[in-house]
Amino acid sequence: MNREDLYSQIRLKSSFLCIGLDTDIRKIPAFLLKEKNPVATFNQAIVEATHDLCVAYKPNIAFYEAMGSQGWKSLEKTVDCIPPELFTIADAKRGDIGNTSELYAKTFFEYLPFDAVTVSPYMGADSILPFLAFPDKWVILLASTSNPGSLDFQHLKLEGKPLYQHVVEKALKWGEPDRLMFVAGATRPEVIGSIRKLAPDHFLLVPGIGAQGGSLAEVSQHGMNSSCGLLVNASRSIIYAGSEKDFQQKARKAALTLQREMEDMMHYHLLQ
Amino acid sequence: MNREDLYSQIRLKSSFLCIGLDTDIRKIPAFLLKEKNPVATFNQAIVEATHDLCVAYKPNIAFYEAMGSQGWKSLEKTVDCIPPELFTIADAKRGDIGNTSELYAKTFFEYLPFDAVTVSPYMGADSILPFLAFPDKWVILLASTSNPGSLDFQHLKLEGKPLYQHVVEKALKWGEPDRLMFVAGATRPEVIGSIRKLAPDHFLLVPGIGAQGGSLAEVSQHGMNSSCGLLVNASRSIIYAGSEKDFQQKARKAALTLQREMEDMMHYHLLQ
Repeated sequence: MNREDLYSQIRLKSSFLCIGLDTDIRKIPAFLLKEKNPVATFNQAIVEATHDLCVAYKPNIAFYEAMGSQGWKSLEKTVDCIPPELFTIADAKRGDIGNTSELYAKTFFEYLPFDAVTVSPYMGADSILPFLAFPDKWVILLASTSNPGSLDFQHLKLEGKPLYQHVVEKALKWGEPDRLMFVAGATRPEVIGSIRKLAPDHFLLVPGIGAQGGSLAEVSQHGMNSSCGLLVNASRSIIYAGSEKDFQQKARKAALTLQREMEDMMHYHLLQ
Repeated sequence: MNREDLYSQIRLKSSFLCIGLDTDIRKIPAFLLKEKNPVATFNQAIVEATHDLCVAYKPNIAFYEAMGSQGWKSLEKTVDCIPPELFTIADAKRGDIGNTSELYAKTFFEYLPFDAVTVSPYMGADSILPFLAFPDKWVILLASTSNPGSLDFQHLKLEGKPLYQHVVEKALKWGEPDRLMFVAGATRPEVIGSIRKLAPDHFLLVPGIGAQGGSLAEVSQHGMNSSCGLLVNASRSIIYAGSEKDFQQKARKAALTLQREMEDMMHYHLLQ
């Protein structure tokens, strides 16, 4: 999917919501456990209930890998059930030497038809460029993450600038705004602002609202650009909103609450 | 497996060789393609031919993931066929927020019974500690990798010290030498020396000899400690040494050449 199609979806739905399909079989409604593939059935139900309110889905691959070959089947079925107009992100945080990154790219772009994959920058250019060689596919590079440990290395001032800024500046040479996004955690809105300054046109994928405590208003204030430029992710607060027969309605209600806040933010920042 | 058992294997075999099972179905002998699971059959043959010459096997997970659920089955079968006295490393380069790293740890330590997993440090403490919570299991943390892109970020300096040294220094607080190793690429032996100074007792996993050009003698000179303290990996130069019916003998011969060099290095550095 290209950037224009993504922005069209954002305008159409007045939403920049990404729903994280971090589906843990121990947390889904118990009555689904009798299904042949409970995780895929649950995800399909979540997608059915929410796809008109969000523009992207982001399965975190750890949750599928933890179930081995069965988990990969669930992931395949999940990707299959997402309507093609939605942007799909494999949250895999991969990155390895060139020939190996190429295999990871094939996994998430060919074997599975994801639009984007999250990549860790530690190993540098040749670990990232193989992903960017796939036409119409995206790299979402970790810059500043939302967890406490992000302070350990990402904010070390190396040669006068925090590491995450070095990552953004170098990566701007590797990928245009229609192929590259950055991860910028909601828990440090001022950092979102500093990344936005360095990369005025690139989309930012923002985790960390909801369970992790980030604020949608602050994220929008620091991160929105004239094409929105944001995908804000929520996972647990939506997919586990309910645990009974009405889990679809509960998930829809949680997604709708966020979509309405996003509509307000877009109105305020884009139309004023 | 604990550190003492690993060192026992090293002394017994006069070898600190780790064989990388980076098995690409496009590169294995053609006659194996008629097997039900060609990748697992190939790996099993390589393990049969080399297990008395090496102390560790390291499948790079990318090569299995690229084949989806089938690939995971090959990985499961591969781990099953490795004799229990050998150290097994899932080269996965994972790392995510706490609850997600915990799932990755379960994948590689419980679902699959690996002894160790490679982890990327970018996301900091809470992305690494969940792996260290598993008794008798190991984290192998990326410090300085062997690829050209390693220069992009790992060698940026803060207060006179490159990032990879900050990674090693912080990580020393998280993991003892019997639970934590560092990746130190063979292509920069002086860097191996600087990591050895910071971490005199920790094992170093060293990729980059063979196809990538590093020298075993230089690695040994800069990295060996009194308990050897090195696992040196070779992948392609061993597993693809042959492509015909005699691929097992060719792989064994390539492994034997390295084992004999390692025996010399151990004799020179440990017994003099």
